[in-house]
Formats: sequence, C-alpha cells, structure tokens
Amino acid sequence: MAAMTSLFLKTPIHSTPFPKPHRTHLKFSNVSPQFISYNQSPTRNPIRISCGLIEPDGGKLVDLVVPESKRDIKKKEAMGLAQIKLSRIDLEWVHVLSEGWASPITGFMRESEFLQTLHFNSLRLGDGSVVNMSLPIVLDIDDAQKERIFDSGSTSVALVDSADNPVAILNNIEIYKHNKEERIARTWGTTASGLPYVEEAITGAGDWLIGGDLEVIEPIKYHDGLDHYRLSPSELRAEFEKRNADAVFAFQLRNPVHNGHALLMTDTRRRLLEMGYKNPVLLLHPLGGFTKADDVPLSWRMKQHQKVLEDGVLDPENTVVSIFPSPMHYAGPTEVQWHAKARINAGANFYIVGRDPAGMGHPVEKRDLYNADHGKKVLSMAPGLERLNILPFKVAAYDKTQQKMEFFDPSRPQDFLFISGTKMRTLAKNRENPPDGFMCPGGWEVLVEYYDSLAASDSGKVPEPVAA
Amino acid sequence: MAAMTSLFLKTPIHSTPFPKPHRTHLKFSNVSPQFISYNQSPTRNPIRISCGLIEPDGGKLVDLVVPESKRDIKKKEAMGLAQIKLSRIDLEWVHVLSEGWASPITGFMRESEFLQTLHFNSLRLGDGSVVNMSLPIVLDIDDAQKERIFDSGSTSVALVDSADNPVAILNNIEIYKHNKEERIARTWGTTASGLPYVEEAITGAGDWLIGGDLEVIEPIKYHDGLDHYRLSPSELRAEFEKRNADAVFAFQLRNPVHNGHALLMTDTRRRLLEMGYKNPVLLLHPLGGFTKADDVPLSWRMKQHQKVLEDGVLDPENTVVSIFPSPMHYAGPTEVQWHAKARINAGANFYIVGRDPAGMGHPVEKRDLYNADHGKKVLSMAPGLERLNILPFKVAAYDKTQQKMEFFDPSRPQDFLFISGTKMRTLAKNRENPPDGFMCPGGWEVLVEYYDSLAASDSGKVPEPVAA
Repeated sequence: MAAMTSLFLKTPIHSTPFPKPHRTHLKFSNVSPQFISYNQSPTRNPIRISCGLIEPDGGKLVDLVVPESKRDIKKKEAMGLAQIKLSRIDLEWVHVLSEGWASPITGFMRESEFLQTLHFNSLRLGDGSVVNMSLPIVLDIDDAQKERIFDSGSTSVALVDSADNPVAILNNIEIYKHNKEERIARTWGTTASGLPYVEEAITGAGDWLIGGDLEVIEPIKYHDGLDHYRLSPSELRAEFEKRNADAVFAFQLRNPVHNGHALLMTDTRRRLLEMGYKNPVLLLHPLGGFTKADDVPLSWRMKQHQKVLEDGVLDPENTVVSIFPSPMHYAGPTEVQWHAKARINAGANFYIVGRDPAGMGHPVEKRDLYNADHGKKVLSMAPGLERLNILPFKVAAYDKTQQKMEFFDPSRPQDFLFISGTKMRTLAKNRENPPDGFMCPGGWEVLVEYYDSLAASDSGKVPEPVAA
Repeated sequence: MAAMTSLFLKTPIHSTPFPKPHRTHLKFSNVSPQFISYNQSPTRNPIRISCGLIEPDGGKLVDLVVPESKRDIKKKEAMGLAQIKLSRIDLEWVHVLSEGWASPITGFMRESEFLQTLHFNSLRLGDGSVVNMSLPIVLDIDDAQKERIFDSGSTSVALVDSADNPVAILNNIEIYKHNKEERIARTWGTTASGLPYVEEAITGAGDWLIGGDLEVIEPIKYHDGLDHYRLSPSELRAEFEKRNADAVFAFQLRNPVHNGHALLMTDTRRRLLEMGYKNPVLLLHPLGGFTKADDVPLSWRMKQHQKVLEDGVLDPENTVVSIFPSPMHYAGPTEVQWHAKARINAGANFYIVGRDPAGMGHPVEKRDLYNADHGKKVLSMAPGLERLNILPFKVAAYDKTQQKMEFFDPSRPQDFLFISGTKMRTLAKNRENPPDGFMCPGGWEVLVEYYDSLAASDSGKVPEPVAA
C-alpha cells in the first residue's frame, strides 16, 4: 500500500501552513468524502464510486459553433464586417474556444479576463465560484486594424483565414492595450528573448487586443489527414460514456511515447483498479497546435503513437488517442494549469503530471527555465483545479538487469540508465538503436524515419520538419 | 444620488462576463445583504449597520512578539543559533510580520506561500478559504549562510540587526531556491533594470530564500522620534473601537497631502454619513518603509501631515494618522492589493484607491510602467479582498474660478489646472508658491523647508535626503 499512497497523494509540499484541502471523487460509505485518505484499504472500506464524468468548468460545456441551418446567414453577415486575418496560432485558439476546451470562456478575452488571468491564474464567475485560467487567450490587432474597426461603426468583426474565408464573428467587442512586456513577464516569469511562442506570436503582434463573444461558422478542420483524431471535449465525453469509464486519466504529451511512459500509464490504471474503479480509461492526448521547431512534428508523433498501440504496449480497449488542439507556450507552471484545466472540460478527473511540465531550457542562461518541481507544486495549489486529482509522475528509467523500463529504485541506482530526450533524438538521428525494451520497435522505426526525412543540416541549425 | 452611486460602486470594468459579486457590510432590514445596491435610498430602506470592525484575514490577528516574561530566555536562545544579519528592508518586513499586517502569515514565506503569492496573488488556508497575498515576503541568504545554517544542525536561526543584537528567531526553517528573475518578472511584470526595490533588495541578494515561523524578541522600534506614530493593527483596532467607529476608510499615501486629497477624504466621510454610518473614521496611513530616493522622506511627510491637521484641513476628531511600516515595491496592480489587504488587518473596511496606485514611470521606456486603470481594476477583482469596499479616487484639480481644489468637472475643463507631483516639487524647490488653496500654507512651508535642506545638486542627480 505504501507505493500506492505515494502515487496518489497530492504532491508533497515541504511547507504546510496553508495546505490545500484534499479532495477526491471517491465516496466511502462510512466516512465523509473530505477526509478520506488514499491509504485506507478498499477492502476495509467498501467503495462506492460516482459514475458520472467530472463537470466542465462553469457547469456547461461551451459550444461556439453556429448551427448548420444558420451558417449561410452568418457567412453573409461576416462578409459585411471589418475583417481580421487569423494567423495559424490564432486559428488554433479559435478551434480551442469553439469546442469549449476553455469553458466557460465564450471568446477571445476582454480586459477583465485578461487581467484576472495574468494576476490570479483564475476567473471569478457570476456566482462567486472560481475556475482556473492561466494562459491569456487573446487576439491582437494593430493601429490600422483598430482604426478600420472603429470606422466600420460595428460592434462585431469577422475573423478570416489566410484565404480570406470567414471563420468566425466576434461580437460585442472590446479593444484594449496590449502591453506585451507585462504579458510576457507575468506568463513566463522571464522576458528573455528566444521564447518560442513569444517569438512566433507576440513580438511582432499588434499593440491592441480585441476581445468578444465568438460565433464560429463551421467546425475548424485542418485537412491534414489527422482531423479524425481531433475529438472535441463533447465527443470525448461521449466516447468515455460509451465505454462506461468510471475514471478518466489524462496524459498530456508532445514527445514520442517510450516504454517508461507506457509503464506509468498501465501502472496508473492498475492502481485505479485497486482503488475500486471498475473501468479507468486513459486519454492519451498529444498536443496538436504550435510547437517549437526542434520538437517532433505532430504527424510523426501520431504515427509513432499508432505503432505503440498496434504493438500492444498500450491496450486500445481502455485507451483513447486524440489530439489536443492548443498551441504550446512552454510556460512551465503557468501552462501546466491550462493543460490540466482543459482536460477537466474533456471529462478527465485524473491528470498525470511529469517532471518540469511544459518546461524548457532557459533561452539565454545555461539552466532550466523553471524549477523542475514547481509545475506539480503549482498545479496542486492552483485555484479552480481542486476537483482534479493530480497524479505525480513516477520516474522510470532503463533497468539494465531486467532489460526493460522500470520505476527507478534509489536503492540500486547503478542498475538504471537514464535516456534523455536529447540522447533519444541523437540515437534516432544516427540510426542507432536504443537498448532493447526502451521503445517498441515499430515506434522507434517511425522516429528514425522522421530524422531521415529531415534535410541534412550543415550548420547545426534546426532543419524544416517534413510532414509524415 | 447619482454621484454617490458612482463613488461607491465597484470600479466599472468594461467587460462583464465574470463580474465579482458585489459585497457590502451594510445590512438592510428587508433585503439580503448580497443583493443591495448602493443607489437604494437609505430613507426608503432603513439601515442597520454592523458595529464590529472587519475581521482580520484568517479570523485572528497574528502577533509574533514574544511575551515580556520570555524575552531574556529567547535572547539567550538566539545567541546559540546560526545568525542572519537583517538589512533595513528585512527589518521592516520583520516589523510588518510581527504585528500581523500580513495575517495569517506567521513568518517569512516558505516555498508554498511564495509560489502561491507569485502565481495566484493569494493563499489558500486549511479550511479552503482564500486570503489575498500579492507580494512575496521573503528573506534571502547566500551559499555561505546556507552552509553555516546547515552545519549548525538546527532547524532555527537567529535574525540580528546591524549591531548583531538578536531581533528574532526563525523556527522550522525551509530553504529553497531564490529565482530572482522569475520573482521580479511575476511581481513587477517587467525585468527592466532600474526598479527601486529590485536594485535595493533583490539584485544583490542571495540565491536562496529561507522561510519559517517567526518569534520576534521585542517590538520593533526605530528611535527616530516617529515611533509613537507606528500603531500596530491591534493598536489601531483599539483606537477605532475607542472612537466608536462604525466605518473605517483607509487612505494609503507616500506623498505630501494637498487640498485635493483632503477634499476627497472629507467628501468620502460625508458620503458614508449619507449612507447611514454614524461615525466613519479616516485612517490617514502614510507608508513608512523603504521609498525611492526622489520621494519626500518620511520625517518630512509626517511634519507636513501634522500641519495639515493643525491647519484644520482634516478634522483630528475623526482622523487617525499612523505610519504603515511596509517598504514600497512600486509594483502597481500587484502591490495595491498588499496595501489594501494590510489595511483590512488594521480594521479598515473601506479603501480609497487612486489613479495608478503604487505606479511609477517605466525605468527604461518613456511611459508609465502600468496602465493607470489597472490598479483599481485588479483590486476590485482580487481574490481574498471581496470583503473590502473599494472606493475609486475621484479626480480633483485646481478650480481657477473658485480658487480652490475641486472635483474635476468635465463640462468645463478650461476652468481646471492640474498640478502634477513634478510641478509641485519644482515649485517647492524654487521656493515659489502654488496657487492659493492648493495646499494649506503650513504644509507648503514644510515642503519648501525640505527642499531647502537638500544639498544643492550640480548634476541633476537625486541628492541625499536629510531627516526633518
């Protein structure tokens, strides 16, 4: 039982004066649910488990897509409005908003939400309750666009794609100052140059933000052969219900899956079963939006994940593979809250959090940008995430004595080999094989194929990724 | 009634999807207190006002000063511990903590409080309730000090003043990494060099923070002739009770008081009386800790405030002048929350918030560091401050037609003269007089005297201030 306790207890924080009350969705018949401890034996305390999925933030999943019958009217309406052209990342946010991943938000943030997000990582609702919201979801415009919108005399604008097709209408707009420096400092905890999302989406952005309520004319599609993987929160919830899931545990990733990940996921399922859940389902949920240039592109990752399921490393019976449409900020403890909150909206009540989630190297100094423990600590204390059960990631490494990935045993460190992401990439680039048992052979072949597909780079700079 | 409504309504925020529920301490006999509106006429709704002062955060005022009978023992105990020498600002924080301004915090922050402060501007208590906490109250140590503390084998350290006299003992210590860049970025929303508190207290600080529970051996005194002005929250509460105050409105300041301020304060009192309060008391509460070099020093400000009361501009009968011992961060919307929260602990249930509170010019760019409206917006949305009534500052200017300070009337802008802080300082430096009615003559003389006392500066750089 000791190991189980250590996995399911909230992240231990050394300081205890302001502990977060321990919440759970398990219901024991004899004890108040507020005070149960995970190391109470299920055999001694018969468990009753509540079957419904976790409620979305704000009580209702937001759906901003216009009903089919009204799409033509809305398209015509959009043609008559001032237009804002969406970047790829803007479009990803429209996608995120349209399906309710950010419920209860109903469009790009107005200043009130923006300020609450930056200062409190949370939003207060009309009934006084609080939902988590750690990343600003905002749309920038420049002086000329602001002028054009003002001149149009309308309180609505049309959002159009790169080919000027109307994508959405933003209503009851509010335009406010875009203080980029402050946004960056409060979101990333640094203003050092070289942050991937900042360089891609903020440095060159306009000096104004425009918020409002969104009407999205059609479901967002990318036509890249992966749209069938892009299940909305509502589709995911339907899938979990179809499978009679009584627990959903989400695993956010933006890297290839190796057997250490797989071990963690199967182990989590085993422990949930031990706790009395009858049918825990894994949401394997790779991030599908913007990622930095040296991450493995989505199409290759999806191919790799598919192999992992085909090779039987994960059981398709109790695994749902789907794409999370959000772009990546690499904002560590601030971003991991968004990753967790969005999964509540998709029906997950357990969230697996790794070492240094959403972290990266400091863009200027020779150190990690974030303290590796802060992600799980901040997540465990975050306002609005009290309903979510946080599962700290157990460290897995290659056990040379067993020739497979195993949870690291500190009593025999000499038996373990740590294979970092960099090491893994170097091996794949050089067409070398990792030790047997590190990754299923089919998955490894995909990685090697990806690096083969990259145009050779003379100067060591990151080559353009090629779609799978 | 319209003017009263505009003064007492929460700051209007253009965006409304997530309004903060309107709270008040007024109790109407016929309506639920949650839903009363300030523009309901007191004549139609007989008012019952709750007489007790607002509760301190966490329900109980923290008092960390060792009882007199145990001081000798504690002093001896401190002599046997590893020592940390306190800077002037550290000592100011010990003062702040010792008297419970930061209730329910019981010492320098451990990592859990530090992270919650940086990310959420609030702390969750054991019962699940939330208190506001926007500024990190932390103590830094360097590698060598950390080593010495580790070698001492104790979980307590002694904090000593510049003459090595023991000031306090910090118990159950926790040492954690001091990521200065992240602390600065998340507190100020910028990492630009030239932030006064950063230069004074962070840039040269150690790479570690040490948190724990504080036992302060004696009340903190400065022996500068102003200690009698330094009332603790508990002394202030006793004073308000002695005066039978049924409303306490706090005015934070770090500048000389002119007649525009006085107008606002007397007007606020009048409106509170109109609302049905019988005895509203003003807490005129100048900040007494660290301020930047070009602010008027505390001793001169106190002399000026004293003149303002002597000249009858403010009524001593319903005014308490006291010093707030906190150092100044100049961190705008983040800091104004601390200024308001600390005053709750001192018994204030109304807080007057100005334009750009705790703001300053950007240290590098030619603009204000913060949007002038963000302070009151953030304050009105801040977690843990729901109990406090926020009173937005009405703009006063010099009315040339009446030859006195008046609330600005936008229908006749040509009649008003705005006298900025810079303008005021320039006039005083040049021994010129401001227009009659701008400031009481006695108060103005103090200012002129202060600037006279400054050693003449050739190069235009800020001269060393001289004590009054």
